[in-house]
Amino acid sequence: MTKVSPLAPERFPELPPVAGVTIATAEAGIRYRNRTDVMLMLFEPGTAVAGVFTRSRCPSAPVDWCRSALSGGKARVLVVNSGNANAFTGAKGREATERTAALAASAAGCSEGEVFLASTGVIGEPLDASRFGPVMDGLVRDAVPNLWEDAARAIMTTDTFPKGASAVVDFGGTPVTICGIAKGAGMIAPDMATMLSFVATDAPIASHVLQDLLSEATARSFNCVTVDGDTSTSDTLMAFATGRAGGTPADRADDPRLAGFRTALDTVLQDLARQVARDGEGATKFITVDVEGAESDSSAHCIGLSIANSPLVKTAVAGEDANWGRVVMAVGKAGEPADRDRLAIHFGPIRVALDGARDPSYEEAVTSAYMKNQDITIRVELGLGSGRARIWTCDLTGEYIAINADYRS
Amino acid sequence: MTKVSPLAPERFPELPPVAGVTIATAEAGIRYRNRTDVMLMLFEPGTAVAGVFTRSRCPSAPVDWCRSALSGGKARVLVVNSGNANAFTGAKGREATERTAALAASAAGCSEGEVFLASTGVIGEPLDASRFGPVMDGLVRDAVPNLWEDAARAIMTTDTFPKGASAVVDFGGTPVTICGIAKGAGMIAPDMATMLSFVATDAPIASHVLQDLLSEATARSFNCVTVDGDTSTSDTLMAFATGRAGGTPADRADDPRLAGFRTALDTVLQDLARQVARDGEGATKFITVDVEGAESDSSAHCIGLSIANSPLVKTAVAGEDANWGRVVMAVGKAGEPADRDRLAIHFGPIRVALDGARDPSYEEAVTSAYMKNQDITIRVELGLGSGRARIWTCDLTGEYIAINADYRS
Repeated sequence: MTKVSPLAPERFPELPPVAGVTIATAEAGIRYRNRTDVMLMLFEPGTAVAGVFTRSRCPSAPVDWCRSALSGGKARVLVVNSGNANAFTGAKGREATERTAALAASAAGCSEGEVFLASTGVIGEPLDASRFGPVMDGLVRDAVPNLWEDAARAIMTTDTFPKGASAVVDFGGTPVTICGIAKGAGMIAPDMATMLSFVATDAPIASHVLQDLLSEATARSFNCVTVDGDTSTSDTLMAFATGRAGGTPADRADDPRLAGFRTALDTVLQDLARQVARDGEGATKFITVDVEGAESDSSAHCIGLSIANSPLVKTAVAGEDANWGRVVMAVGKAGEPADRDRLAIHFGPIRVALDGARDPSYEEAVTSAYMKNQDITIRVELGLGSGRARIWTCDLTGEYIAINADYRS
Repeated sequence: MTKVSPLAPERFPELPPVAGVTIATAEAGIRYRNRTDVMLMLFEPGTAVAGVFTRSRCPSAPVDWCRSALSGGKARVLVVNSGNANAFTGAKGREATERTAALAASAAGCSEGEVFLASTGVIGEPLDASRFGPVMDGLVRDAVPNLWEDAARAIMTTDTFPKGASAVVDFGGTPVTICGIAKGAGMIAPDMATMLSFVATDAPIASHVLQDLLSEATARSFNCVTVDGDTSTSDTLMAFATGRAGGTPADRADDPRLAGFRTALDTVLQDLARQVARDGEGATKFITVDVEGAESDSSAHCIGLSIANSPLVKTAVAGEDANWGRVVMAVGKAGEPADRDRLAIHFGPIRVALDGARDPSYEEAVTSAYMKNQDITIRVELGLGSGRARIWTCDLTGEYIAINADYRS
């Protein structure tokens, strides 16, 4: 039914295996027909786990489950389904997570506290966990390394392409691998395009250090991407470190082996985050918003999100209109320190506004030509300090409306 | 070019004259052809004035002008133009306000500090104040009472109908009149649909009391309406009290004569605010969001705006889909106290969710039938306290995208 986003990469990237991780997918018939809708990752014993979850006050049952299970710090199994988010399902939702975890623990021969769960799809409808029964043993039995693309496909909902990224980096003299997959398109509709992402590495890292690394990297990646500003009940980002690359687990954040790993984790998560924006529902343009000269980085981040979430900025880009007036509006409404008369705005290489007014050298034709590009950069200089932020988003088109007005009915 | 909103009232209401106020409109050729684009109100000497303005950090030049002039507390002239917002126009923008005020003061025989200004239309383009020169004397000369509909039409931009409301109320034994007009459609695009509203009364009220009344009434009216969550650089609401109904000016907020006036002012401003939502760009449904049982009124207001600004809630209503899952999402993302498992949601008279899950008696057909209505009410009960709020908005359609993606280019 859905055409692939015009902003999609040409193909799914080559992702290497990660020692200690095997993957399987299956058709459990949760909601879709003739496609995989459940994905299982198996981790060798001793795998450290970390997670970052939605800030919603109404989180899904699997988010509750994972938050609780994280206290153990170890993971053996991850089970993810698409088609049903198991969100806003009350007591039945909790029972469904318990039942799924019991099935997975039994199949994998581990404790239920080592099972992690995520669900994405329609919300408010009970998830029938018995659907996992006939496929669980087969998933555990058939899991193989390096099934990343299949895994990425099995967790898609309205996504138009599977999303993956990887890096290989030195870890104290030993090369380690980081592989990640993600799904998300209508960042973030709770019933169709929840953002999920799972990252695995063979690096030896203790769970509390992995948690710090993941939280920090999230601030620089998935927290910098928006499609429609609607926050999912199910946002889940998890990292798994098997330690199979060898060496003693990094037990402190200042372990010198982590320097390159931090950068590589940023690279992988930012790549996945940008792919989510490139698959934004109805997107025809990929937009990078750069804010510079703010009073602080957090102030710049807030202003960047105000621009990136503005329906009027996003529709202007869709219309290939260099409407910097709407950028001024979005800066003004952010509520952060800003001095109208010091503001400068660039569209790509073109400075369109300076010192709180249109640039004297502004030429409509030149700017209009730039707006024909598929990738658009909006840069705002506030002239107040050294705070900066970069936000990724996409334009807002009639197709977004069509997708979201027609869904479910 | 534009069809009238399907949510428009049948006709402009009958508005009575307000003693001490005369009105005129003219074609100054600011941007549009063959329509009025400047509106002038004249007030008899001694008229008290109050104003509430955009919270944008990048306000327009006329907003700066009015904020400064308000310190005098008296008004003789209001000049409003459409077609150009005189926003983000730097030093030229300030000069344009000074020049316009000088022309108006000269024509009306008052001081420049008694002149108030508002502009709405494209931003970032210098406003040529010399356009007011040829028409200003005529506007003052020809001003007549009771030209409300003409006034409301002259200040329209993408509005599809003129907006007016009035009330007559007892003021310590004397009937007084309140008349108001407003414009706004894409609440609030800075370059096309800035919210402006002007209210006049013959009640005798001192300016500092009028300011308190106006600020309080704004919190219950225009601050409860949203179309797209984008805040204008030019939002301006002003009130003028001529005192010509007689009596000594109310000098204290607890003056007993003000009780009925407060309610009447609420009625007028709320009527105008609802008309703005009913003229929301591309709107096909008028939505009332009621939040009850929140920890506080301000918490309820925040949750209500989160629902009313959610693109996914608004597209669902456009698609006549009772997608209460998206309402849950919007409650969750507001960041305010909420307990998922106590949440109940109603669409009109139908309870669709209860205790954090779908209502056991939910029937898709009944709910779908309700969603065919033009006026939709979404009610959320949080079950935490007694805080409540009501927000007005409209749905989000492909027409909104078309209007805003095609503008200017």
